Parts: sequence; structure tokens; C-alpha cells
Amino acid sequence: MSDFGKRSLELHAKTRGKFAIVSKVPLKTKDDLSLAYSPGVADVSLAVRDNRSAALQMTMKGNSVAIVSDGSAVLGLGNIGSAGALPVMEGKAILFKEFAGIDGVPIVLSTQDPSEIIRVVRAIAPTFGGINLEDIAAPQCFRIEEELQDLGIPVFHDDQHGTAIVLLAALLNACKVSGKKPEELNVVINGAGAAGTAIAKLLRCVGHDPSVCVPVKDVLACDSRGIVSRKRYDELNEEKRRLLAYTNRSDRSGTLRDALEGADVFIGVSVGGLLNQELVRLMAKGPIIFAMANPVPEIWPDEAYRAGASVVGTGRSDLPNQVNNVLAFPGIFRGALDSGATQITETMKIAAAHALADCVPEPNRDFVVPDPLDRNVVARVAEAVRRVAVADQEKD
Amino acid sequence: MSDFGKRSLELHAKTRGKFAIVSKVPLKTKDDLSLAYSPGVADVSLAVRDNRSAALQMTMKGNSVAIVSDGSAVLGLGNIGSAGALPVMEGKAILFKEFAGIDGVPIVLSTQDPSEIIRVVRAIAPTFGGINLEDIAAPQCFRIEEELQDLGIPVFHDDQHGTAIVLLAALLNACKVSGKKPEELNVVINGAGAAGTAIAKLLRCVGHDPSVCVPVKDVLACDSRGIVSRKRYDELNEEKRRLLAYTNRSDRSGTLRDALEGADVFIGVSVGGLLNQELVRLMAKGPIIFAMANPVPEIWPDEAYRAGASVVGTGRSDLPNQVNNVLAFPGIFRGALDSGATQITETMKIAAAHALADCVPEPNRDFVVPDPLDRNVVARVAEAVRRVAVADQEKD
Repeated sequence: MSDFGKRSLELHAKTRGKFAIVSKVPLKTKDDLSLAYSPGVADVSLAVRDNRSAALQMTMKGNSVAIVSDGSAVLGLGNIGSAGALPVMEGKAILFKEFAGIDGVPIVLSTQDPSEIIRVVRAIAPTFGGINLEDIAAPQCFRIEEELQDLGIPVFHDDQHGTAIVLLAALLNACKVSGKKPEELNVVINGAGAAGTAIAKLLRCVGHDPSVCVPVKDVLACDSRGIVSRKRYDELNEEKRRLLAYTNRSDRSGTLRDALEGADVFIGVSVGGLLNQELVRLMAKGPIIFAMANPVPEIWPDEAYRAGASVVGTGRSDLPNQVNNVLAFPGIFRGALDSGATQITETMKIAAAHALADCVPEPNRDFVVPDPLDRNVVARVAEAVRRVAVADQEKD
Repeated sequence: MSDFGKRSLELHAKTRGKFAIVSKVPLKTKDDLSLAYSPGVADVSLAVRDNRSAALQMTMKGNSVAIVSDGSAVLGLGNIGSAGALPVMEGKAILFKEFAGIDGVPIVLSTQDPSEIIRVVRAIAPTFGGINLEDIAAPQCFRIEEELQDLGIPVFHDDQHGTAIVLLAALLNACKVSGKKPEELNVVINGAGAAGTAIAKLLRCVGHDPSVCVPVKDVLACDSRGIVSRKRYDELNEEKRRLLAYTNRSDRSGTLRDALEGADVFIGVSVGGLLNQELVRLMAKGPIIFAMANPVPEIWPDEAYRAGASVVGTGRSDLPNQVNNVLAFPGIFRGALDSGATQITETMKIAAAHALADCVPEPNRDFVVPDPLDRNVVARVAEAVRRVAVADQEKD
């Protein structure tokens, strides 16, 4: 067990978990009780019962997000179930609070059936201002998120879009460092699960005006069997088939090695250690590498640089350019809640990525994304998201 | 609108609800993040995944209670739905925190279907150490609570048992004041819904040793059609039929007026204003009256006393002897969580009632239950509940 592991166990045993609730109103006198609870609360109940905006104003619904997991894909640990997922969801809940002032509420489920998860989230939704789906395995995560888009509150699977948004921000800044143009990039994504699929989707819009979609030149998505291609149609699941609509324009097939030939960007969201210097040398000059497998990246930065990489990022907090979701989800939900948005749209995600990229005024090889602890990020991401959401509402 | 109503609306608008979350661990440095979240939390996840006692020790499960409502019977407002229920559940959540240090989490549901509610509570249960069902209408509330008793964590419908426990405590002390013996009481309960049914059940055990059940002499439960009796069997719902097993031993039938003749105790949990001095005079000498309809009681205390009552209690905070659930649920859940109990049994409820009664050392006409703000109550109720739970575990 790592030093962090040991100390984390001690910390959790000492504090008995990380999540606690607190009252925003005093409860010391009879008068306090009569205002917070009966009889005073009856008038609040009547005021909010048929009035969404009053409910957002006077109840927790205006500022709370349920963090829902079935425990099927927790961190790098896999399917460890709901009990194992709970410490992670508590961590997420307090990150929401610390970074964005949002009241995150962990909800871990005894079921891993997608239809049942959809049903349960629908049932508990009146309580919350948003739903953050977390650590739910692909491909179920896609259907669950999609079917819940009509809930009337934002539903966002962070393992997909949180990662994709931070990655896009990092990539935009990496282009500035390496002198590459986003719309001319040939990108290889290794891993066609939750994060890989969401990244491929976001790479359809890399231009600086998020309302006009300018895609990268091409994306090749690879899974454990190689390039996701039309030839493999029969063996592909529904979500990988959909990927074909906006990846692999030149209809290539083959292995990851084949995909890497001449590519400008490698994005790894799968297994550690599978890239090496020889493979990096097959890529175009000065390639951009995001090796985000955890805890062991697809290739260590020093190796990648020795093979000619221009910018390297990972998922590790002890290395430069950490692609960390905490740079995205707090600001995204803050902006969504503040604007009363009912969904988190693609345009909102792209605006978030650009705002995040802009938080680094002069990117360099070791600094293409802000530090996860940079407290200026949330407000800027939230403002960008809010602006797009409000503009969309005005269009309707 | 009452003064309380106006001020409560202002308060809720100012604070934007009452519920907030807070982190129990610091999140200021990279090191903090690595302990609370990734990578350190992975070892906590593995430690708790198959170990219930570790989970209770290191996650929110050890100290949290979901407060679940479908909004079908909120306060005296009736079926106002989930949005209207939320301010009440938030109030309950902060009462849990303030009185017992328990992290209450409001969950209001978009469904009022009992099977669906059962399904949803089962699904979210891994998150919590207990479930407090709240403001769910009878008779659905009975089935929902009953079917969830196998969840492995305490499931407790407060509108039934919270009220019943405080009432039993008040009644035991009222007997001391009036010189009546609990086991000789003829009791009339007006209202055969959630609270009335639970009260009738608890009146099966009024002796001072909670392990030996000594019932009151008889209970007549009345609904809007009069005494619940064998004659009415065909028209009675399932729960009222079950009431016949332990009420109405002498097989009486008739109206509320008929029931009151010679009764020692009136317990009102239904409609305000339906008792008057003439009806009270039909009762036995020095009757005990608990007129708990809200906001207007079945009879005002001064009237009841003029008609000869020995002790009168209500549900109102501005009158003596308020039967207020807050005297019960915090201590009950505190005791249940501290003992690791998987259910809240009848014996635990009776022990809670006796402990609560004992919090008033010298009862008098105006003081048969403690003040709702008495901070000594929770610990004493919790300790009584814990002791019974531990004794039960040792028997198994």
C-alpha cells in the first residue's frame, strides 16, 4: 500500500468519512424551530409546490447535485460495487463544495441495471438541481445519461465529459506550444470507453468560436482490437458504431501501431505502459502526447520527450499538465445551476474547454492546463457556461 | 398568512434553503486532495467494499439517515407533492443534525406508487445508515415500511412511531399526575391513520419493564365512520382489520360519542375542533386528553380543563405538553446507529418512550413531556435504545 493509501485510511477512520451536513439557519430557540420547521415551513411548502423558480430560490434544489454511482467502474479499480464507491463519491461531494460552493450529495446504488438506474434517478430527481453520474461503466453509461436528458435538470456523466473538456483545453494550449493548428490535427485516441468516446465527440469542435464547429482533421479511435473501423461494424457495440460517424474519415483499419503512423496527437485513456519511444517516433514531428492511464501512464513524460514529443500530459498529480476533472465539473455545474439550464449541451462543454484553456495566459511545455488548486478557474469556467446557457435560452 | 409564515418565507429566500453540506477533511493543498480523493481514496474503497463495519467506520454510512418522502401527506397540508415536501424534509435534516449530530439527507420522490417507493429506497440504501420515511400517506405508509424491514439498516416511519413514542411517554407521566394506572386505562384514539395505528400498537406495552408487555385495559380506535369494530370488517382496509387484533376487546361499535363514554383517555390525531365540553363530561373522572390536531386541536386545553380533564396535551408549541416528534426521532436514530441495529424494534420504541418519560422527574399537569429544546433528552433516549439493541444482538 502506498503512503497516500495508508494516510488516507487513517484520515477516514479518524473523521468517520468526509461528508457531513450543516444547517444554514439557527435552531437554538423555539422561534428558530417555528421558522425552520412547523408551523412556519408550511407557507414555504405552499409557495414552492407549483413554482419551480421559487423552489430553486428557497430549497436545496437550487444548489445541490446528486453524485450517483453504481460502483461499476470506480477509479482504476473496476467494478467494486456501491460500498467501495462511497468514499469516492464523498470525495467528489466535498470537491463540489470546496471548489464551487455546490452541495454535492453522494448516492450509491444497489443496482447496476441501466433501466433501474434510470428509474431511480428519475424518482429522486425532484430533490436536486443536477445529477452528476460517476464511475458507471461503458457502454451502459451512454444510455443512462442520454435517456435522462429530459429530466429538466442537468445530467452529466463526469467520466465522459469532465475528462473530455479538460483534455480539449489542454490540447488547445498544447497546439499553441507546438505550433500545430487544431483543425489540422490527426488524433489517435486509445480507449473507446466513456472518456475516449466523449473526447472524440468534443474534437468535432476545436475552433475558437464555440458556436461554429470546426473539427480536427481526423480522429482514429482504437480499442483493444485496434482501430474502430467500418470493417469491424458487425462486432462493434452501438456506441462504437456511432463513433464511425465522426471518426476515421479515410476509412483506415489496423492496429494502434498503424494508427500512430504520422499522427499529431496521442490521447491515452486506457492501459498504462503500452506506448514506447519507438511508437512515438512513428508519429508526426513534435507530437502531442496525453498519457492519462492511472497510476501508470501509457508512457512516462521523460521517455516521450526523448522520442521527440513537444508536449506531454498525464493524469498524475505529481507530474506537469495533469488532466484532472476537478478543473471542469465544479465550474460547469456552477454555471449550469446559476443559469437555470435544464441540460449541459455540447456548446456549454466547448465553451468550458475554451475558458479553461484561456486560464493559462502563456502556455508552455509544462503548463498547458491550470493547476487543479487554482481557485480562479471555477468562476471563469462557470461564467463561460452560464453565458452560453443564457444565450441558448434567449434563442428558444 | 401567519407571522411565522411570512418570516419563514423571508428566511428561506435569504438563505436559499436550509440544507448544506460540509467537508470533514481539509482540501487546501495537493496533499489534502491526494488523501481525500485520488490516489489515496482507492485504498479506502478497497477496505470498505466487502466489510460492513469498516464502511460504517470510514464512510458517511455510519452517521447518515435519508429522509424520504413522496409528498403525499405533508404536515397538515395533505398531498402537496415532492416539491412542496422538500422544505419540510430539509427542516427534518437539520433537526437530525442539531439534536443528534446525524447527517440527515432529504430525498423527495417523483413517484407515489408504494412498490416504486420500496424499489427506490432499496436502490439508494447502500449510501445510508438508516431511512426515515416521512409524510407518506396511510395506508401506503404501512406496507412501505414493513416491506423495507429486511434492508439491513433501520427503516422508521416517523409519522407513525415518532408520534406514538412521544405520546406514550406523555401518557405515562399523565397517569402519574392523574393517579390513573396505565394498565387500567380505557383509551379512545380518534384517527386510525399512520399515527393512530402506531399509537394503538404501542399501547400494548405500557408497563415499566419494556421486555414484558403489559397493555392498557382497552383501546377503541375511531375513524370518520366511528369505532373500528368487527361489524365493519368488510369495509375496513387491511391495516384497520389488523387493528382489531389488539383493540376493541369488548367488541363495541358506534360513534366517537359512544366510544368516549367512560373512557379515561382521549387521543386525537385527526381533525381539529371535534371535541367539546359535553363530550369530555361523558368520559371517566379526570380524563387525560391529548388533542394533537394541528394547528387547531380537537379541543383547546382551557375548555378541556373546565370540563374536568386532569391533564391536557396538544401538538402546539405555544401550549404546555407539546407532543413533538423531535423528542423521539433524534435519540432513536442516534441509539440505533450507535448500536449498529438493523431494525428499530417495538422493544426499542417502548424503551425510548420510557426513557423520554423519565426525563421529567416530577410531572405535573403542565409538564408531562420535556421541552422540545431540552438538550438532555437525546442522549437519554439514545442510550435506552442502544441498550435494548445491544441486548437483542447478544440474544441472537
